[in-house]
Amino acid sequence: MDKSVSFLEEPENTREEILKATYDAFREHGYSDITIQKISDEFPKSKSLLYHHYDGKDDLLLDFLEFMLDQAEEQFPLQPGEGADAHIEQVIDAMFTPGEPVTDEDFSRAMVELRAQAAHDDRYEEYFTRTDRFTSKHVEYIIRSGIEQGVFQEVDPEETAALFQVMFVGLATQQVTSDESILEDCRSEFERYVRTCLLRDSADTD
Amino acid sequence: MDKSVSFLEEPENTREEILKATYDAFREHGYSDITIQKISDEFPKSKSLLYHHYDGKDDLLLDFLEFMLDQAEEQFPLQPGEGADAHIEQVIDAMFTPGEPVTDEDFSRAMVELRAQAAHDDRYEEYFTRTDRFTSKHVEYIIRSGIEQGVFQEVDPEETAALFQVMFVGLATQQVTSDESILEDCRSEFERYVRTCLLRDSADTD
Repeated sequence: MDKSVSFLEEPENTREEILKATYDAFREHGYSDITIQKISDEFPKSKSLLYHHYDGKDDLLLDFLEFMLDQAEEQFPLQPGEGADAHIEQVIDAMFTPGEPVTDEDFSRAMVELRAQAAHDDRYEEYFTRTDRFTSKHVEYIIRSGIEQGVFQEVDPEETAALFQVMFVGLATQQVTSDESILEDCRSEFERYVRTCLLRDSADTD
Repeated sequence: MDKSVSFLEEPENTREEILKATYDAFREHGYSDITIQKISDEFPKSKSLLYHHYDGKDDLLLDFLEFMLDQAEEQFPLQPGEGADAHIEQVIDAMFTPGEPVTDEDFSRAMVELRAQAAHDDRYEEYFTRTDRFTSKHVEYIIRSGIEQGVFQEVDPEETAALFQVMFVGLATQQVTSDESILEDCRSEFERYVRTCLLRDSADTD
């Protein structure tokens, strides 16, 4: 599975160059301080191209998010679910290290700010609804696979995926807005939950 | 337990009047659109009083948060832990209806925006660290009480409280930024976790 975000390394066209400039400015300035001017400062070509394509910073950021989601859908297809127990371990690793290995903490901080825009801007809420569904469907698929493979208990896949989804959001937010020191304790307890409530083999050994 | 936020109903001094005006403006405009001017529009007394006491909107919002935390500490003291199983039910109810019964959804939306400020502003991060610790300590105390009372399993109270804390943040954020429809599924699964991993009586009936 290719985990890099390719357009960030080698943008292939003007749109990707603009989105790379957006990514760089967004990481550096966060949502509250980003402006079209700061994005254009990162853009190697004529500024007028940028103003020609986008109406404002939100227009640009929403296109950036859309592109990220498209890339995620390409890079993380629903695959034949061999080894669902190993897959769920990977999901847990990803939950407790938000951003990594694709991006970094500056980007994670900026994404938490961006999600907060959805509290009053329907365009962002619509986007985060779609991206959260993408995540939930993935977890749900892994869980269904694990039940079929006999490695998971007969849980309700949608309910379990919903809890994973809320944990994703909580961890990403907690990590950049508050006390990070609880994350290790949280992980221990979450792994106990997975062993006790999801995995079949060790369900009765804890 | 008195669940109202008293200063919002009957402010008793100038500071409380200013903080009530802040609350009203904050609910209405959210973080991104709030200004000192909009707060002063809600303030019945001389605007100069407000400018005299506070340097800017963040100064005022931080004092408002501080006051809210003081009120919470007064209203939710660590009490002798009778009926820890009933207390944990109340905590779960509160988790799945953020804001209620103290405030409303407009306030919950504004609080999610405010927490996001902590991603790049240490003053907010310091505040949310303290308020999250207040929440965690409460949950931890209920869990210790439940273990002593024999109604909870011999879990690690800090680890369990850490998972509750992250769920609090995740639920508050998910509810106002994305797909609310998953919250019911999430609650079912979270209650299964509590029955299976925390409560003693029904631990082996699920």
